[in-house]
Amino acid sequence: MKTVYLTASSLDGFIADARNSLEWLFQFQADPPGWEEFEARIGAIAMGATTYQWLLEHELMPPGADPKPWPHRQPTWIFTHRTWPTPPGADIHFVQGDVRPVHAEMAAAANGRDIWLVGGGELVGQFWDHRLLDELIVTLAPVTLGAGAPLLPRPITDPPLQLRSVRQQTSAFVELQYDVVYA
Amino acid sequence: MKTVYLTASSLDGFIADARNSLEWLFQFQADPPGWEEFEARIGAIAMGATTYQWLLEHELMPPGADPKPWPHRQPTWIFTHRTWPTPPGADIHFVQGDVRPVHAEMAAAANGRDIWLVGGGELVGQFWDHRLLDELIVTLAPVTLGAGAPLLPRPITDPPLQLRSVRQQTSAFVELQYDVVYA
Repeated sequence: MKTVYLTASSLDGFIADARNSLEWLFQFQADPPGWEEFEARIGAIAMGATTYQWLLEHELMPPGADPKPWPHRQPTWIFTHRTWPTPPGADIHFVQGDVRPVHAEMAAAANGRDIWLVGGGELVGQFWDHRLLDELIVTLAPVTLGAGAPLLPRPITDPPLQLRSVRQQTSAFVELQYDVVYA
Repeated sequence: MKTVYLTASSLDGFIADARNSLEWLFQFQADPPGWEEFEARIGAIAMGATTYQWLLEHELMPPGADPKPWPHRQPTWIFTHRTWPTPPGADIHFVQGDVRPVHAEMAAAANGRDIWLVGGGELVGQFWDHRLLDELIVTLAPVTLGAGAPLLPRPITDPPLQLRSVRQQTSAFVELQYDVVYA
């Protein structure tokens, strides 16, 4: 069982722009090659409140449009201090505080499959703080944003990440895979 | 004649850490493969004052050690408002203000060869502001820094950069090449 942070990022390390928008990303092809394969290995999902809010407002319950179904079959844990609506059909757990007991609960639910940390970077950083992040898969978009939500706001240099693979995914995207090792 | 920003960067888009250090970079192999080939195409070099200061203090004139020779045969333009020493043997021009006339002077000196913008990111951003940046070559180190000097503090999304090539350069580094296009 691995805990994996898979995300798209700008070339300068932002996962959302300064207005929390992903427009810069959605100008490209939506589902990159390899997505279905990744999705199949996932048994539980975690995300932060900002990511969940963005999903609700822009994808699932946009104002003035029909609501869309929750896109994940896996149980999903949302780290938040606020109260949110739950989309129909979604298996969602609202949690807060220390990531360690939540990670244990997710691992039990995943039942041997992997855990996907969707983001944001600060939440993933909290998993890293407790040596719970195993793998980083970054899809680099050919843009710079100059400001925004950081990919992973931690200094991870000693030991460095271990490059596992790099491939050009589409005409625009590069996929980088790293293993996380701890001192 | 191309104007090229070639730099190493952390995975999260910083070219120096919050203390302006490159220690995170120098834990790896010094001269990556392809460096001599790149150096041979360069006819003029530009860098900002912070980069120059770092070179002087850490590489060329470190306190308590013998000074080293200036590493570049090409004429070099330093953008600065301050007065600096010039290492022996260096062909250095201290300039300030608008990058356009300096770029014209550099292009003339380069005599058909390319111009290398060493950094930092803000100086390169000024070349981009005037549509003078043609190419971006980023060597991604397998580290995150969380804070520091930004790779290129501009929103470049519309049009996006054009991915030209990606390759694994060493066991640790990935080299990404992008062409810059303008609206």
